[in-house]
Parts: sequence; structure tokens; C-alpha cells
Amino acid sequence: MKKKIIIIGGGFGGLNAAKELDDVDADILLIDKANHHLFQPLLYQVASAALSPADIASPIRAILRKQKNITVLMGEVIDIDINSKKVFTEDSEYRYDYLILAPGSRHSYFDNDGWEKYAPGLKTINDAITIRQRILLSFEIAEKLHQKSEQEKYLTFVIVGGGPTGVEMAGAIAEITNKILLKDFRNIDYSMTKIILVESLERILTMYDSELSETARKDLEKMGVNVLLNTRVTNIDEKGVYIDGVLMETPNIIWAAGNTIPKITKTLKIETDKAGRIPVEKDCSVKEHPEVFVIGDAASLNHEGKPLPGVAPVAIQQGKFVGRTISDELKGKKREEFHYFDKGNLATIGRAKAIMQIGKIKASGIIAWIAWIFVHIMYLIGFRNRYKVMSEWIWYYFTYRHGMRLITFLKK
Amino acid sequence: MKKKIIIIGGGFGGLNAAKELDDVDADILLIDKANHHLFQPLLYQVASAALSPADIASPIRAILRKQKNITVLMGEVIDIDINSKKVFTEDSEYRYDYLILAPGSRHSYFDNDGWEKYAPGLKTINDAITIRQRILLSFEIAEKLHQKSEQEKYLTFVIVGGGPTGVEMAGAIAEITNKILLKDFRNIDYSMTKIILVESLERILTMYDSELSETARKDLEKMGVNVLLNTRVTNIDEKGVYIDGVLMETPNIIWAAGNTIPKITKTLKIETDKAGRIPVEKDCSVKEHPEVFVIGDAASLNHEGKPLPGVAPVAIQQGKFVGRTISDELKGKKREEFHYFDKGNLATIGRAKAIMQIGKIKASGIIAWIAWIFVHIMYLIGFRNRYKVMSEWIWYYFTYRHGMRLITFLKK
Repeated sequence: MKKKIIIIGGGFGGLNAAKELDDVDADILLIDKANHHLFQPLLYQVASAALSPADIASPIRAILRKQKNITVLMGEVIDIDINSKKVFTEDSEYRYDYLILAPGSRHSYFDNDGWEKYAPGLKTINDAITIRQRILLSFEIAEKLHQKSEQEKYLTFVIVGGGPTGVEMAGAIAEITNKILLKDFRNIDYSMTKIILVESLERILTMYDSELSETARKDLEKMGVNVLLNTRVTNIDEKGVYIDGVLMETPNIIWAAGNTIPKITKTLKIETDKAGRIPVEKDCSVKEHPEVFVIGDAASLNHEGKPLPGVAPVAIQQGKFVGRTISDELKGKKREEFHYFDKGNLATIGRAKAIMQIGKIKASGIIAWIAWIFVHIMYLIGFRNRYKVMSEWIWYYFTYRHGMRLITFLKK
Repeated sequence: MKKKIIIIGGGFGGLNAAKELDDVDADILLIDKANHHLFQPLLYQVASAALSPADIASPIRAILRKQKNITVLMGEVIDIDINSKKVFTEDSEYRYDYLILAPGSRHSYFDNDGWEKYAPGLKTINDAITIRQRILLSFEIAEKLHQKSEQEKYLTFVIVGGGPTGVEMAGAIAEITNKILLKDFRNIDYSMTKIILVESLERILTMYDSELSETARKDLEKMGVNVLLNTRVTNIDEKGVYIDGVLMETPNIIWAAGNTIPKITKTLKIETDKAGRIPVEKDCSVKEHPEVFVIGDAASLNHEGKPLPGVAPVAIQQGKFVGRTISDELKGKKREEFHYFDKGNLATIGRAKAIMQIGKIKASGIIAWIAWIFVHIMYLIGFRNRYKVMSEWIWYYFTYRHGMRLITFLKK
């Protein structure tokens, strides 16, 4: 009888595992809550109206259309029984011989879940559309108000968290605000917009050397972003955000400060690390359960003494590794250990502004920016998306105009 | 003191009036509920996952960016006082010397407003996304079901109304279903999908000669659409749609059967025609109020003995005419009468299938289809949208793949 392989999650990890299992004679089932794979590194560009959702997302079924050994299901896994080797969705149960758990991560509000309502994070297309609409709507409201004091709060944008998402989002808001939106509004004073990036540590982008962090900070400041270091958000409510206890009134708060793991991992009943991640063995499997793999953001695996970061390259490499491991094992080969190949880090701040660190090579400015473009286009799935995103970027580079500025009124 | 001109609505009528007033020394205020102008004739392609919302919509501010005499407000007009010449939004009032009312139309459920929940119409981007998600989600659900009898209702699509929107939507669903979706699902049987177009009259597309109606009907049937003529929808509820009293179980019902006028026109307290439209004089102004114009779908004006239809060319020509009328009047010129120049009708049924009637010239098939493409690209606003839509169509023509198949979970 054919072996049954279940993959939970169609993100970078799950999708790469699925593709690696291409030639395996097994029944593979991929389950995801969404019907699409999302290229999360560019999600902030959807939130800032530079790209359309469909530019960075593709239906998982379409991506795996030619792979005959796989079935894709849109659904939510609500329980996993690791002993009887079963996965439960709301309406069905599925037995597995191998399980690949690649559920990604969600935002953590550090036990302040009430903040989410006012300060959405940026993980899904829906998040991005919510943020986009909030930003655009704030400008529309400000344009209608007659008193500067009333306008002020709508023209204030606070981004919490100075990691890559926070930095990219702050830079993107600065660009859309200064270069684009202000030209279209007659009643808004350029000098009134305030963009604030709040970071609790002493520098932003801590995965980079401190001089690159400093370059990024200076770039942001030049673009009009006020970067607050060693600063904490103490509360968020319907009035706005409290920065070191002081209220900053605004409806525009974006959360990019912490991650946690989806609830489904808890059903494994395995003790997690501090960040809620599942510790895995050197082959990415769970202790005493060699048939269960956890990969990507949800896995905790040390590499050169430090836990691997929750970034796309880790998930991609782990996905491929686990797919290959299962494929080999079914052919009778012995398992190997996962080795992460660190290709370096890249973050963009704005037009022709980025930073790059590959081992000891550091760069910033236009060179890093071109590298960033090249890498992101290369990793986008599908020729069609590559072509579309590239043409949007070229259009924007020459016109300074973002086309995706639609407020479509999500129903509440 | 400068004259004040208020335009309500940024659709084809309002936008063209605004542009025509380009060189007038007046304060123009354009108010729209949305922040974008929408190219409604292609909305069905957003609903059927062929185009992205941003391909056919542009922010009104961006379109009018260079026109310095105009202010754009996103807001809802809740009252008009035609005697004191004032327009009221939720938070402000605005005085006018000239008012151009171009609010478009909404769906009419013929006093069955409860049907809207189950059978959305297709007027806004939100409508299109709702319909798109319902269709895609139905396939996802059907894929998970194990009994054919359970799958059946999710694979049934009922379109109510055989006008251009209904026909285009039925054709588009047939294409996405047969050519695209079915290849991506492993558990769905091609022969089970049912697409039904319900028309109460004896033929579809009644604005065309009967032989073209018949060509369109045959094309639809060839594509797998079941066209029911002389047939009425008697009820719609949570179970499905009742066709001549018989229940057809399905969650996929699209309403394209009737139009009515937005409530705001009622505040004018003018007696309307049977369809709820405001009768206007030959110069598109309201009787006894030469300073108030009503244009587009909301206006009732006879042309060669018949009321002008609620289509884009009428709204565009009336918008331009009214803009010019005001502009001329401010220069002391006398008013003229509006003359509609009928450029003919075009409707598309599917790939390389369309019908066309321009005066006595009739055509169908690929010639009409190419004309349809040409006209729609030409009237799209902005080079950017033209370029994007054209490239999507070319992509689709060669690959048969729609890229916009995203279920993004609108919050309820």
C-alpha cells in the first residue's frame, strides 16, 4: 500500500517539501487554510499599495497542478494525534505515515491580544488589505477635516518593531506619503505627516552588523521616518499607541514586533522553546517521532550555536531537505542531518536604498537595492508573477506612482 | 466670487463632466462614496478571477491630479436641498451654484431585498470579490466532499438575468470552470458542473436583433451554459434559488436582473419614472431647476421615442455635454440640447465569441470579439490600466490560465 504523507501548510516550507516529493510513489495530502501560496517578503508592498494581492500570491493547486501524487485541500487542521498518526480537520480525519508540519508563524502581542484590533500585523493578504485601507482612509478623512489639530492624528503612522518588516513598512509608508499621496490631496500639509518606528532594542535590524543598522536608520530618517530606539510600546487602545507611557493619538498602528506559533502545534503536546517553537532533531524530526517533521518558523533548531531565524530561506531549505529525506528513506537510504546554508540577509528601505550582508560582505545603497530586487524576483513563484511584479516596479521607478490605491470596503 | 459646482459620483458621467470643466474658473467639488473610478464593463472579469481589482479601477484623485480647480472628497451624500442649493454629507454641508448628480444605479430585487444576501449583484469591487470568493470556495468545498450528491449543489451556478452582465458572467464562469478550475481539482467530475442562465423574457440580450440574441444563446449552450428563457425566479433563500417555483440548491447565485437608483435621488423630491429614474429636460437639467443636472443611469431622457439605456456611452456623453453646458453658460453662451450618438452595442460571450450591432451592421464571432477588446481597452482610463489589462488578456489567451484565483477571506 502506498505511503501517506501529509503536509500542513503551503508556505515556503510546505510547498518546497511537496515539490521535492515529486517522484515519490505515495499519496501526498497538502492542507492549508488559504487557497494560495503567499510570497510573504513582498507583503508589505501590498499593504503600501505598490502591488496587487494576485502579484505575490498563486493558488497552491495551480502551482502543483502537474504533480499527480498530491491532493490539495483548503481547510484548517484542528488536531493532530501523534500517537495514532492522524490529522483532524473540522469535517474529516486523515491518517499519515509521514507528517510535515509547516504552519508558519503568527503575530505575538506578548499577552496583550486586545492590541491586535488596533494594531494589525502583516502575515496574510487580508492583513495587508486591512492596513492599506486604513492608511488610505486616514488620508481621505484628513482631507475632509478643517482644523489642523483634527487632521494630525490621521496623518500619524506608528510602526512597532524595527525588524525587516517594520523597516520595510516604515520606508514604504514614507514613500507613498511623501511622493504620492500628498500630491493628490489639496487640504493636507506635507509637514504634518508623522511616521514613527518604535524599537525596544538599541538598534534596528539586529541581524545585521551595527554599521548597516545605522545606515538603515539614517536612510529612514532622511525619508522622514522618526526612529525611536530603546523605546517601548506600553499600551494600545482605541485612542492610539502609548509610547513609553505617552499617548500618541492615531488609528494607524502596524504591529511588526513579535512572532508566535499557530495553536495547532500545541496539539503535539511537545514542550516548546521560549518563543513557542517546537524543538527538532538534526534531521528536522520531532524527538521519538522520526515520522513527524517540523520546519520553518515553527521549528526550533540550532545552527552554529544560535537558533535558526524565522526567514524564508530556512523554510525553503528545510522543506527541500525533509522532502528529500522522506524520498530517500522510502528508497531505503539512511537519513542525513540538515545543514543550513546562510545566503546572507537583504533588507530594503526605499527606492535605491537597501542593506545587504553576506558573510563578511556588506553593502548598502543602490547595489544592495539591485541585489534585493534580483533575489526577490528570482524567488517569486511562476514566470507570470515575476513578470508582473517587475513591470510594476519599473513603472513605479519612473513614475513614482502606485496604482493599487483602492479602498474596497472590507465588510466588517 | 467663483461659482461652486458640485458633482456627485465619480463614475463615467461624473468623471467626464469634471474633465470637461477643466478650464473653468470655478470651485468644483467631486464627491464619491468610493475613492476610485471603476470601469464597470469589465467588473465581471474581476468576479471571474481574470483581472485584479486595480486593473480596472483608479483613484479618482490620481485621475484628476492635474486639474487644479477640483477637490475630490470621499464621502456619502445623505441629503440634497434643491431650494437652498445645498448638499449634505454626514459631517458637512456644501453650497452649490451648479449640481451634477451622477450617482449611477444599484441592483433592484423587485421588492425582495432579502434576496441580496444570497444573490449578490455586480456593481462594486466588493461585489466582484464576494462573487469570486463564493465561486472559488464552492470548488474547494466540493473537492472535500466524498458523495456526488453532496458535491452537486456546490457545482451549480445560477445567473439571474440575460442582459449583458448576466451573459458575460455566465460565459466567464463556463470558461473558468471548464478550462481552468476542473484541471486543478482531483475529486470533481467535469460533467457535474451546471451553469444556468435564467431570463424571464423570450430571448437574451434584447437590445440586439433577435438573430444575434440567438447566436449568443447558441454560443452559451456550446460552452455548457443552460439558458432558460421565459423563466422566472420566484424566490431565493438560504437553500438556493426557486426557478418557476422549483428549488435549485446552490450557494452560487448571481443577480443581474434589474436596476434601481440610489436613495439619494429621492431627496430631490421629484417624481420618478417607473424604473425610479429622474426625468430630465433636453439639456439634462431637472424641470424648473436649470442649475441641477442628472446624468447617466439615474436620468430618464427619451431619445428617438425610447428612454436612453443605462450604459456607459450615455453617461460619458451626458457628462461631457453637461460639463460643456456649464462651461459655455459661464461664458454667456446659450444652452443646447443633448443628442445621443449611438455607437452601437457589443457583448462578449467567451474567448473569440462576441456579438456586435452598430446601426444596421451586425457581426458575431471573432470579428465582434476583436472589436470588443479594442473598444474596452480604448475606454479604460490611463495608459497603465490599458497596458495591464491587455497583457492579462494576451496571457490568458495563450495559457487559458486565470491568475487572480485568490480567496482572501473578507471579514464578515
